[in-house]
Amino acid sequence: MACSKFEYVKHFEQHSTLLPNSHLVVRVDGHGFHRFTSVHNFTKPNDARGLDLMARAARACMDAYPEITLAYGQSDEFSFVFKRATTLYKRREAKIVSTVASLFTAEYMFRWNDCFPDTKMAYPPSFDARAVCYPTDKNLRDYFSWRQADCHINNLYNTAFWALVQDAKNPRTEREAQVILKDTDSAAKNELLFSSYGINYNALPDMFRKGSVLYRKPSLVAEKSKADPSKEPTLRMRNLVCVEYRDIIGDAFWKENPSVLPPPE
Amino acid sequence: MACSKFEYVKHFEQHSTLLPNSHLVVRVDGHGFHRFTSVHNFTKPNDARGLDLMARAARACMDAYPEITLAYGQSDEFSFVFKRATTLYKRREAKIVSTVASLFTAEYMFRWNDCFPDTKMAYPPSFDARAVCYPTDKNLRDYFSWRQADCHINNLYNTAFWALVQDAKNPRTEREAQVILKDTDSAAKNELLFSSYGINYNALPDMFRKGSVLYRKPSLVAEKSKADPSKEPTLRMRNLVCVEYRDIIGDAFWKENPSVLPPPE
Amino acid sequence: MACSKFEYVKHFEQHSTLLPNSHLVVRVDGHGFHRFTSVHNFTKPNDARGLDLMARAARACMDAYPEITLAYGQSDEFSFVFKRATTLYKRREAKIVSTVASLFTAEYMFRWNDCFPDTKMAYPPSFDARAVCYPTDKNLRDYFSWRQADCHINNLYNTAFWALVQDAKNPRTEREAQVILKDTDSAAKNELLFSSYGINYNALPDMFRKGSVLYRKPSLVAEKSKADPSKEPTLRMRNLVCVEYRDIIGDAFWKENPSVLPPPE
Amino acid sequence: MACSKFEYVKHFEQHSTLLPNSHLVVRVDGHGFHRFTSVHNFTKPNDARGLDLMARAARACMDAYPEITLAYGQSDEFSFVFKRATTLYKRREAKIVSTVASLFTAEYMFRWNDCFPDTKMAYPPSFDARAVCYPTDKNLRDYFSWRQADCHINNLYNTAFWALVQDAKNPRTEREAQVILKDTDSAAKNELLFSSYGINYNALPDMFRKGSVLYRKPSLVAEKSKADPSKEPTLRMRNLVCVEYRDIIGDAFWKENPSVLPPPE
Repeated sequence: MACSKFEYVKHFEQHSTLLPNSHLVVRVDGHGFHRFTSVHNFTKPNDARGLDLMARAARACMDAYPEITLAYGQSDEFSFVFKRATTLYKRREAKIVSTVASLFTAEYMFRWNDCFPDTKMAYPPSFDARAVCYPTDKNLRDYFSWRQADCHINNLYNTAFWALVQDAKNPRTEREAQVILKDTDSAAKNELLFSSYGINYNALPDMFRKGSVLYRKPSLVAEKSKADPSKEPTLRMRNLVCVEYRDIIGDAFWKENPSVLPPPE
Repeated sequence: MACSKFEYVKHFEQHSTLLPNSHLVVRVDGHGFHRFTSVHNFTKPNDARGLDLMARAARACMDAYPEITLAYGQSDEFSFVFKRATTLYKRREAKIVSTVASLFTAEYMFRWNDCFPDTKMAYPPSFDARAVCYPTDKNLRDYFSWRQADCHINNLYNTAFWALVQDAKNPRTEREAQVILKDTDSAAKNELLFSSYGINYNALPDMFRKGSVLYRKPSLVAEKSKADPSKEPTLRMRNLVCVEYRDIIGDAFWKENPSVLPPPE
Repeated sequence: MACSKFEYVKHFEQHSTLLPNSHLVVRVDGHGFHRFTSVHNFTKPNDARGLDLMARAARACMDAYPEITLAYGQSDEFSFVFKRATTLYKRREAKIVSTVASLFTAEYMFRWNDCFPDTKMAYPPSFDARAVCYPTDKNLRDYFSWRQADCHINNLYNTAFWALVQDAKNPRTEREAQVILKDTDSAAKNELLFSSYGINYNALPDMFRKGSVLYRKPSLVAEKSKADPSKEPTLRMRNLVCVEYRDIIGDAFWKENPSVLPPPE
Repeated sequence: MACSKFEYVKHFEQHSTLLPNSHLVVRVDGHGFHRFTSVHNFTKPNDARGLDLMARAARACMDAYPEITLAYGQSDEFSFVFKRATTLYKRREAKIVSTVASLFTAEYMFRWNDCFPDTKMAYPPSFDARAVCYPTDKNLRDYFSWRQADCHINNLYNTAFWALVQDAKNPRTEREAQVILKDTDSAAKNELLFSSYGINYNALPDMFRKGSVLYRKPSLVAEKSKADPSKEPTLRMRNLVCVEYRDIIGDAFWKENPSVLPPPE
């Protein structure tokens, strides 16, 4: 299209780019989800429908970007790893974070009715996103260990907190529950849950305690012939995105799935 | 919450910030809107429902962020000016662009049914966003002149292009229309529209030719007393977001609305 | 020159650029000048030779870069303003700060013997540099007010400090002098200087109290004809860099010298 | 020191930092060295005194910064590797590049007389500096291969160029020499040197063909007792900076000196 004398203003754009050949993590975070989950009556401390919806939105992002090898979500956040060689949008930071935040938001809303068929959305949710580069595999794994340890710490706290608040006989105010839990360690919270509420924390669903791990898994898929749909389907290996609720701090996950973190070229 | 030994990875975050006390423009752009508008049967060359939806989403962003003094939209893009003194999110670029892109996407989807009541959304739209700083008022006005000149140039082209393609007697392919319009100037396109299709370009709606200008206008509002709703409402001056389709290249708009671009403190 | 397969590493360079059309200030700061001035026996609290050498190095930088309109120095630092329209080195930050730091260092060393003819340089000095953009004239003037206020505050303190340490009858240790001056205000330091040492602070040289202001002043210069050197020289107006020790916090300097801060184009 | 109302301008500083845990290369480049070497009568195509002076300045930088594990220089440039774990100046880019450029300049000037005892410096040299991060060992080694390949390519060209220009019987102008060498490959330049000038390129000094490699080598040092200088010196292992002119593209150098590129922590 034709130029105008005003076009010089384009040169004020400053494109910061993310270091090439380093692991690129984009994390989306819910904006004001305390209120959003409250208005929409999410179950406390964990709402399986809400976590499922987050994972569905994340899966849609992975479908849109084949460069994503791994996604991990907990609470109102999701982290995506783009493989270190990616040159997506020339690695321009603003373009990447804004697009991922927008896409995640869009997919979350688009699938709302699948997970909350009986809840009308009162107002739309939003998310921010940030991008961080990690030069080594160890740094990247430590990033995910950090998020999963955070999931554990927060979830244990929240489980105890809501047990106290939702206590049938002796309900506490949120403020009281905070005071009771202040400065308690993990053992004390586990003990409180077990002795007062009969809850064995370690028996709670992995979805709540571990968070959601999405990655591409080579899977046998029965594919029909397009040319002749009447023919017997053929079995083919395809990388399908799967969701698992499992530990990613230890080595097992990474050893089983070397393609998640391939050696640098 | 408690720390873990993995938390050091947080220090790999690099927060680029936008220069303080400079005009801050955030522009959201539709991602793949050629396909999106086609799949959803938007009217060509302009769909008033689609433009209205964009403006409604923009207005919701202005409601969310009082720091926005002006928004201008055309086609699948919208630009927002945050006032130069804003310290929103400490002026961190990634936070600002990702949040605005997400919010705009969310509001666009949330209002879809208001503007397209008979069209089921087939898949969700997404937007990217970028932030640019402008140190002077002149630079800022030139930015908006650039976008509005762009609106004019594109819209004249598209109007001629779709006239040729939708020609009832002699429809052209998109490729043929491109060839016909290649290297024509504005006068030639105006002439083609008028002589072949009886279209007086300058008589087309301002919404299409000028784009949408949103700003806060001091307006008299009749407000009921909360204490005593039976009382006669009181008239008060409030800054209400209004939408106008008008020229912002000339001085008139800016002189009429000095609060859009206040002098620096 | 020919390429090699290794050349891809060039793309890891990330050039952050400084916002166009904003005032660009580069400040060089001495690195370890406490030790450097001590080893080279600089007079305390102020060494006129050292300040003169700083100003000579700054003048050489202004001779090298016509884009510099103003320089201000005090103690072991010097600030340079590049005019807002400059596109020097495409406004690449690393290139600008490294070049100015290098040039200043080089000119300081090159002129050492002119100012310290009897002092052999024991080891070379070094400087760092930073670049800061200021969008408005007010921000820029406030920057220089900040530095000149800093000059005043530090110099008053240092004058009192060294008076105590160099007290002929009752010399204090540096530690004792610190304790005495801790929490004293300006009035108390002025009083101490006057009553104990007969020093009227305001009568001290402007070079020490105000710092050094360098700018280009239209001046009549007698220029000989190159073609015929025997001819009478012609008087011409030239912008010559001059050094003055004067207030730049008030309006007078800026009103007298409008070319230092021209209106934006 | 006390604050002033102007101090807010400090917040306009934007500190871009270099990604943690990635190899950090700082390269200094001579500014206008074509003229500098010409004015100071450097021998062409290579001046051993000038290369020696560069290496001495580089060694002084390594003495000042123990974080530097390797330096490589050729022509008017020198590259330094700071170990990936360094947190020097909080990895602030402007601080690092300006300080290294300044220090290198200072040491180059300070040692001038050692290498050019008979040449008065007519004006001072200056250098710029840039910083680049490399996430992997391979990227880092490829960086140095790039610079050493560049040394080879340039030096072969320059050797042929100056042979033509300095040809005793048939001196060419610089323009003529350029035309003769244009589009010639390495073999042709080697052949020209050998057949016309009897120069066996590969027999030229490694200093010219390979550039200068500086690294810390564990070395036996005889150290006198400070307490009793009359005692026999003790032999101790110390990491001393050594200069070698050798290949760093192949594996040999890196295998012999694993401490130059230690595995990440």
